[in-house]
Amino acid sequence: MDLKKITEQYRDELLEGVIPFWLRNSIDAECGGYFSCLERDGSVFDTDKFVWLQGRQVWMLSMLYNKVEKRQEWLDAAIHGAEFLKKHGHDGNLNWYFSLDRRGVPLVEPYNIFSYTFATMAFGQLSLATGNAEYAEIARRTFERVLEKRENPKGKWNKIHPGTRDMRNFALPMILCNLVLEIEHLLPAGYLEPFAEDCIGEIMDVFLRPELGGIIVENVRADGTLSDSFEGRLLNPGHAIEAMWFVMDLAERFERPDLIRKAVEATLRMVEYGWDKEYEGIFYFMDRLGRPPQQLEWDQKLWWVHIETLISLSNGYRLTGSKECLEWFGKIHDYTWSHFKDSEYPEWFGYLARTGEPLLTLKGGKWKGCFHVPRGLYKCWRILDEVSSKKPIFAN
Amino acid sequence: MDLKKITEQYRDELLEGVIPFWLRNSIDAECGGYFSCLERDGSVFDTDKFVWLQGRQVWMLSMLYNKVEKRQEWLDAAIHGAEFLKKHGHDGNLNWYFSLDRRGVPLVEPYNIFSYTFATMAFGQLSLATGNAEYAEIARRTFERVLEKRENPKGKWNKIHPGTRDMRNFALPMILCNLVLEIEHLLPAGYLEPFAEDCIGEIMDVFLRPELGGIIVENVRADGTLSDSFEGRLLNPGHAIEAMWFVMDLAERFERPDLIRKAVEATLRMVEYGWDKEYEGIFYFMDRLGRPPQQLEWDQKLWWVHIETLISLSNGYRLTGSKECLEWFGKIHDYTWSHFKDSEYPEWFGYLARTGEPLLTLKGGKWKGCFHVPRGLYKCWRILDEVSSKKPIFAN
Repeated sequence: MDLKKITEQYRDELLEGVIPFWLRNSIDAECGGYFSCLERDGSVFDTDKFVWLQGRQVWMLSMLYNKVEKRQEWLDAAIHGAEFLKKHGHDGNLNWYFSLDRRGVPLVEPYNIFSYTFATMAFGQLSLATGNAEYAEIARRTFERVLEKRENPKGKWNKIHPGTRDMRNFALPMILCNLVLEIEHLLPAGYLEPFAEDCIGEIMDVFLRPELGGIIVENVRADGTLSDSFEGRLLNPGHAIEAMWFVMDLAERFERPDLIRKAVEATLRMVEYGWDKEYEGIFYFMDRLGRPPQQLEWDQKLWWVHIETLISLSNGYRLTGSKECLEWFGKIHDYTWSHFKDSEYPEWFGYLARTGEPLLTLKGGKWKGCFHVPRGLYKCWRILDEVSSKKPIFAN
Repeated sequence: MDLKKITEQYRDELLEGVIPFWLRNSIDAECGGYFSCLERDGSVFDTDKFVWLQGRQVWMLSMLYNKVEKRQEWLDAAIHGAEFLKKHGHDGNLNWYFSLDRRGVPLVEPYNIFSYTFATMAFGQLSLATGNAEYAEIARRTFERVLEKRENPKGKWNKIHPGTRDMRNFALPMILCNLVLEIEHLLPAGYLEPFAEDCIGEIMDVFLRPELGGIIVENVRADGTLSDSFEGRLLNPGHAIEAMWFVMDLAERFERPDLIRKAVEATLRMVEYGWDKEYEGIFYFMDRLGRPPQQLEWDQKLWWVHIETLISLSNGYRLTGSKECLEWFGKIHDYTWSHFKDSEYPEWFGYLARTGEPLLTLKGGKWKGCFHVPRGLYKCWRILDEVSSKKPIFAN
């Protein structure tokens, strides 16, 4: 594999293809914020605004401004989205709605904690870019809200009857691993490490299961044991693999080669487990006992699953020099670029049938926005660039 | 088409294949109620109990007892499920949980009004079979709960922010059209007709849209106008077609040939609209403007969609003698029997990929139980039997 050439491929796709696509098509100059429901060619097919995706796009553009180049166009577009979110995204008390209509009037109540986490990411990263104290304060206070809601994230919208089968879910500790690094500049001294260690422990000692051959489950009982139920059998390989690069980031920061190796090992196990030997690609959902999953979309191939896998594998290779990581990276790279990249229009397809044909040709929707594709392209570009220039950091 | 032979095919499949499968595999002799999560061969893969499906199975077995034959085995099995539901299915005040664990301890709160409607159907039909006053009272009082909850069925679990885009949904008036006939024996004199007329008006004058070529939409604005939004563009052909035989039943009862013709016409328009010209079968979800639907399972072929279509088409043919109904019936019959029926084990597959291959080989799960397949076999058997024996009732 010509890593130098591939590095350029990721960078060019990001800077010449994907980001210009979003800047050209997603900005709502009339009402503020971003359109995220974009057809294959970039035309808007729905004007609803989803707070997850508004926040993620603010973060993406701010991050590029902070880490790639001080392009005014990126910063202006980030502020454009942040001002809309600041004004319309929450109830006045930083409870972040799930969705809004085009004008910013709330459609769906603040039931989803990830509206809060992505708002925190957005305002945290933008506060770095602008030095704006109000943005910093929004990020800090929203992070406090997240912590308040940690034990019962859905609040009154929680439909689970308490006490029968209380479960712990993987998603929140996973996202917190990433979020705490994102807003480190806003946290008190000494806060980061114990907080991160707690989340890492949750992920690597509770959801990662050595007795299942080292795979990661989505839900465990409140006492940390496995549950033979639909929730307790559920696997989401992309989710687990994404979490592993969040953990690698923390492990690198804390200089813990043991933890890096553990995260690389888990990445490889989940990639092997999730790989569709018949049609290639990584399944969306699986049942760890091979029983029928509840999710009818279980066998579909989703863009973010593959892009997050590329990040974890390339990063695992950068950090440890693992040959297995490099081989799998090559295989997933080939699958991803030949199936998700649209050869006619910029940006990538999001949803493929099991066999690899696009199931929907949209470039953005309720769940797909300016986030996983550009973040993955950025991360892989930077990771591979570092690989080309030096030896693995924590080689075996 | 040899209608006499086909009539026998439906009857035999019901009485020799499908019902014995459920009686053999679904009864939980230890904890009460029914298992609904059954693998292809009938083995239990999960023991959670879903109140929709518990109620539907009680209804199914009671209905067969009432309408086919006084088999003690059917009645015993119906009472077995009803006693479990009576004891565990609700909170003591006839608020019906969504799901329970095997022992009957609640897992998911009573957020879903269709747990209530199927409990009403179950106890209503069983009260007819047994003459048991307590069952009748449960049905009557649960029906009152449904009516109380009609304006905001999800209650405190409703995540829609009020006032921005208030919508009316097709599902409840549709189910009420069927339910009110089911529990007629429990209603005060003079109640049925005005109540049913109200539901019929809702369906045929609000959700059926002549300006869209006579298709039925899933959601309209509170004022009855169309909405260009994900919800407002959504079509669910199987849902719409199922409602049309509910309306035909009422129209036959009230001797309204105009309404029968309108329901037959709408059935045909939705079958044509929903038919997949490339791979055959009827799509699960569509967008009326051809935009990308939000449901990733949109292109899958579901058992109930096809079975309900067979009922509406055969009934439309029985009532009007429509040649179009008969032709489409033949086409859907061929598709359904060749794709959903399992040639190795009893009962039918539920979920096919767009191309027609089984996506899951389960025979029952969270949403598929002892209901659509046997009800459809029963209905088609009886409808076709009547067709063979006399002329259409309301011929053009």
